[in-house]
Amino acid sequence: MVSMNPESYFPRNIKAALQHNPPGEWIPSVPANAIRLHSGYPAPHLVPSVELKDAVAQLLEVENDLPLHYIGSPSIDRLKEYVRARQEVRGMLAKDNELLITSGACQAIDLIARIFLDKDAVVVVESPTYMEALEIFWNYTDQIITVPIDKDGLQTEQLAELLAKRKQKGMRQPSFLYTIPTFHNPTGTTMTAKRRNHVLQLAEEYDFLVLEDDAYGELGFTSNPRTLKSMDTQERVLYVGSFSKVIAPGMRIGWVHASEKFIQALFWFKKDLEHPFAQATMATFLKKIDFSSRLQELSKAYQKKCYVMLSALKKHLPKDATWFVPDGGYFVWVKLPNLDTEKLLSKATEEGVSFLPGKYFFLDQEEGAEYLRLSFSYESEKDIEKGIEKLGYVIVSK
Amino acid sequence: MVSMNPESYFPRNIKAALQHNPPGEWIPSVPANAIRLHSGYPAPHLVPSVELKDAVAQLLEVENDLPLHYIGSPSIDRLKEYVRARQEVRGMLAKDNELLITSGACQAIDLIARIFLDKDAVVVVESPTYMEALEIFWNYTDQIITVPIDKDGLQTEQLAELLAKRKQKGMRQPSFLYTIPTFHNPTGTTMTAKRRNHVLQLAEEYDFLVLEDDAYGELGFTSNPRTLKSMDTQERVLYVGSFSKVIAPGMRIGWVHASEKFIQALFWFKKDLEHPFAQATMATFLKKIDFSSRLQELSKAYQKKCYVMLSALKKHLPKDATWFVPDGGYFVWVKLPNLDTEKLLSKATEEGVSFLPGKYFFLDQEEGAEYLRLSFSYESEKDIEKGIEKLGYVIVSK
Repeated sequence: MVSMNPESYFPRNIKAALQHNPPGEWIPSVPANAIRLHSGYPAPHLVPSVELKDAVAQLLEVENDLPLHYIGSPSIDRLKEYVRARQEVRGMLAKDNELLITSGACQAIDLIARIFLDKDAVVVVESPTYMEALEIFWNYTDQIITVPIDKDGLQTEQLAELLAKRKQKGMRQPSFLYTIPTFHNPTGTTMTAKRRNHVLQLAEEYDFLVLEDDAYGELGFTSNPRTLKSMDTQERVLYVGSFSKVIAPGMRIGWVHASEKFIQALFWFKKDLEHPFAQATMATFLKKIDFSSRLQELSKAYQKKCYVMLSALKKHLPKDATWFVPDGGYFVWVKLPNLDTEKLLSKATEEGVSFLPGKYFFLDQEEGAEYLRLSFSYESEKDIEKGIEKLGYVIVSK
Repeated sequence: MVSMNPESYFPRNIKAALQHNPPGEWIPSVPANAIRLHSGYPAPHLVPSVELKDAVAQLLEVENDLPLHYIGSPSIDRLKEYVRARQEVRGMLAKDNELLITSGACQAIDLIARIFLDKDAVVVVESPTYMEALEIFWNYTDQIITVPIDKDGLQTEQLAELLAKRKQKGMRQPSFLYTIPTFHNPTGTTMTAKRRNHVLQLAEEYDFLVLEDDAYGELGFTSNPRTLKSMDTQERVLYVGSFSKVIAPGMRIGWVHASEKFIQALFWFKKDLEHPFAQATMATFLKKIDFSSRLQELSKAYQKKCYVMLSALKKHLPKDATWFVPDGGYFVWVKLPNLDTEKLLSKATEEGVSFLPGKYFFLDQEEGAEYLRLSFSYESEKDIEKGIEKLGYVIVSK
């Protein structure tokens, strides 16, 4: 008789992955009435719940049981058409077999990691970067390299140096660079056009791919910069888009736009299959609205919220606090010198305001101790003002 | 300048996986007006499209934007409660951390493969078996071993022999056995209680796990046999359930019931995250219905359809054709000696009827040449009768 030890059944790579922080460890425990400045959620009044309810009613009246089976709803194909059309508006021409609908951007990033990363593979990420992407990549490899961000996005000169050194030393070059070039999470920065060109040039020179995460790319306050994918002449860019920030994250719909061979491989490993109910509902909703007007409305609303947050920060935060001024997206990234933002969080939530400590966005968490991420997306302007006032109070009375 | 060759970026294991048949290759191309006996779909009139529409309306009226964010809808927790209660009815007690909601049974199987299979891992499957499970497993390993099925399910004596031989030779033993013990796909057979006990005894003796796929397990015409999980005293069984066959596959909701450590590891790799819109809708629907009555209604309806199919088979198929008589589920598995069912399919679809050729359910596809899977689930009784008549005609006039 062999007694059962659950962990003995995991292969080595799984055991290694399980040594990291558990997924979602960064989600703070926040009292129900706290002002939530940690949530990367869209504003409640900008989530089209009534319209989505109507979309479901219309869809099921027209198609009956069709969108409730595995395949067969014509709306699913229409969703792909909408995504394709949207890509085209932004200067990215996708053939049908160059698009894959995914269950959100996270699944897209995970599938891309799945097809390119073996256990010795190298991946480059921005520092700081999206914490969920870190969670995904260290499920595959321990060879994660970071390149710092400044107000103009990824510091491509540093990337160039790093690649040159690795080449000199005969080290394995990265499989891909993961970047959020536009309205970056968590810093809110945007990569300059010059640096974008530099990224693509380096990708060609050192033969790596680029995973462009564009979840916030259409939420520019005044304009949306060109995507890396739209500048990509070599099919090196795997573009990831999402409806989470511009419609509703709970629908779990994102997509990948990449060369046919890559899309085919991603499809091979996508074993949750299509999500007909959610996808057909989304297609029905998109048919009824003017997506460009919706984006304009969102951008205006988030710009106002951002302005309120920035004004409040100036008013309520100590003089040595600094932050980047975003041109779009959801986030403001604040530096509080000589402070440990993780310790600050428990005091802040007691006071009734939340944020995300910087540590979760860094591979080496200590680098993030003085930083915090604030979201202006979710709360009302009034509560943003009040929340920052509380935050200022907590910092001063620390 | 390096020119771009997409395939050069894939690690060896991904290249190997891509050598297999593409996912969904088995889906036949069928004229719109053909009688679809290939589809493992629920009957259109048994898919609760009106009730699901009402559930969405009610959910969004009560919870507004909540089920449209990443987390936060109370209905998501309620869904887990319903699943837990359902497991309990069937003699399987799950603690909260022993359940994981997945995007259908396929994702559950894929996640289980992900955490247990490295490239040299061994997995045992029934022969024939669910073609999507084969697609999933060969994405991980080439060490797939088959054990044949007869009218009483998996031939556990053969499994025992195989394991003993491997032990003798010092070969690696399987990580897990994948089985559909109840109303098997594709054969419709059910494993006897004696063999179930034998499976669990072998699992203990040779220290492997059991992936129990129970997608059809509550669709018994007269009763539902005890699950392996309910007999499992060692937490060796990872149980996979699904709402696809009893509510609607397009909702993409399944679950895993397993020991806490396994559930934790599965969660680690589930990167499509929760699907709040679909899950909260399902919870709202389940709250409104009597699930046990629903199951009774389904079983009665499918039993009738099965009866119609079996009678038609007797009437219209050549005398040398044989099949198992199912006690539940969706499928009848037919053997047509000296026939190649793949060739037969193109003639059949021309004639206006479809089925699935047996080859897709075998690791060694040639073994399936004389078999075909018929679904009685989807079409009306009238069309089942008509479809089998057409099938008989095609076989005779081959």
